[in-house]
Amino acid sequence: MQQLNVIKIGGNVIDNAAELDDFLQDLSILKQPFVLIHGGGKLATQLAKTLKIPQEMVNGRRITNTETLKIATMVYAGLINKNIVAGLQKHQINAIGLSGADANIITAKKRPTTPIDFGFVGDVSYSDIQHKTLQFLINHGLTPVICAITHDGKGQLLNTNADTIAAQIAVSLSTVFDVNLIYCFEKNGVLLNSNDDKSVIAEINQKDFEHFRENKIIIEGMLPKLENCFFALRNDVKKVRILSASALKNHINNNSNDGTRIK
Amino acid sequence: MQQLNVIKIGGNVIDNAAELDDFLQDLSILKQPFVLIHGGGKLATQLAKTLKIPQEMVNGRRITNTETLKIATMVYAGLINKNIVAGLQKHQINAIGLSGADANIITAKKRPTTPIDFGFVGDVSYSDIQHKTLQFLINHGLTPVICAITHDGKGQLLNTNADTIAAQIAVSLSTVFDVNLIYCFEKNGVLLNSNDDKSVIAEINQKDFEHFRENKIIIEGMLPKLENCFFALRNDVKKVRILSASALKNHINNNSNDGTRIK
Repeated sequence: MQQLNVIKIGGNVIDNAAELDDFLQDLSILKQPFVLIHGGGKLATQLAKTLKIPQEMVNGRRITNTETLKIATMVYAGLINKNIVAGLQKHQINAIGLSGADANIITAKKRPTTPIDFGFVGDVSYSDIQHKTLQFLINHGLTPVICAITHDGKGQLLNTNADTIAAQIAVSLSTVFDVNLIYCFEKNGVLLNSNDDKSVIAEINQKDFEHFRENKIIIEGMLPKLENCFFALRNDVKKVRILSASALKNHINNNSNDGTRIK
Repeated sequence: MQQLNVIKIGGNVIDNAAELDDFLQDLSILKQPFVLIHGGGKLATQLAKTLKIPQEMVNGRRITNTETLKIATMVYAGLINKNIVAGLQKHQINAIGLSGADANIITAKKRPTTPIDFGFVGDVSYSDIQHKTLQFLINHGLTPVICAITHDGKGQLLNTNADTIAAQIAVSLSTVFDVNLIYCFEKNGVLLNSNDDKSVIAEINQKDFEHFRENKIIIEGMLPKLENCFFALRNDVKKVRILSASALKNHINNNSNDGTRIK
């Protein structure tokens, strides 16, 4: 099968215009086709603050009420998505920006309201992703750029976790491509010591992960990210890697071992 | 050639959630394929006000500075576009939301800065519209929903007039479809007396238009809209009509004479 890279780009790279442009230029010289999934960065939080819309957090996760959903839709599907698309077009990549509602590519289920009502938050499963539509676009030279806004098929937009969407898209596309799932962010990989950017763990398997989690060496946002990685590997994604956005080009074009390989 | 309706929906219908849903439902039972172009409504103006971003007007037209462009991108390409797409999906129309940057469908030229610098405003010509990409999407059962944000191909998004985009898209698609261009808004058509919604002018040709313009019977925003209509007719668009959003379904499915036909 044809190789395809499903690439997730994190918020901190998006927030910096120069870093983002470098990253988009790197994408433009990749030797293999790709799908890009992007998160939100700090822009949505800043806009909520300016608009004085209180952001309610429960267990470190944001509640998406009506006003917060509007902000997420404006920032993720509008401002960030279209700037990335225009930036890729500048570098001769024929990008097409998509939310989950566009061409119905991702139907999500609104998360149950018990035990915690997270509001307009959607949960996504690979079985609800129209991978044939994505394949159809890719086969015609278009590069999907996907934001983390989905819909329920009944007219309701939903806010969704971008790391999870990346993993579920990677799994769904594995029926028609040999998929590499790559999480790009501002650090060099999964770190043994979060203050030492040179302490990259070169490879990590499920057993290592359990050990690192128990010993609190891997904490916070890296935990669900790694769970998404292992989920992808268990469901036919060929390779999964977490690395610095600046190392992506070298990794794909030269098969370098930058970052952390999930095995 | 196959019939295609290029439909522009105006701001006042978008601003009212119930009216918009009625309109989207009507679109879902049209017997012919269509492309939808939407304007912005009052949401962008409201958001600028809340964010205390001063809106500078020259000769009744808005200057699009960096902050205003961000707002337009968030509201038109994000909030409004994705809500329309999700609303159409609810009614079983497989809509795909697009800005001009997406799949590079509309390249615009930044308007010259003299005599007036309108900022990040783009001018569009049908020769810069990728009608084959639109045709490719339509032929695969997708319904393009296009907002008035375009790009210059060099990474810069531009704010563009939605009425003009509708006319230029209609002209560009006329090389591959028999196109009907339809402007839908909150009034019943072009009115002889703007206070009397029953005073609809049933038909209007270029000569009538010059007469009405000279006598100030047709004024303000209706002038450029009608100029767009005549431009479309001079460039191979088959039929052009201005009518109430609520009359669209009856016009297309039953060939009714609602609104104003431009001849």
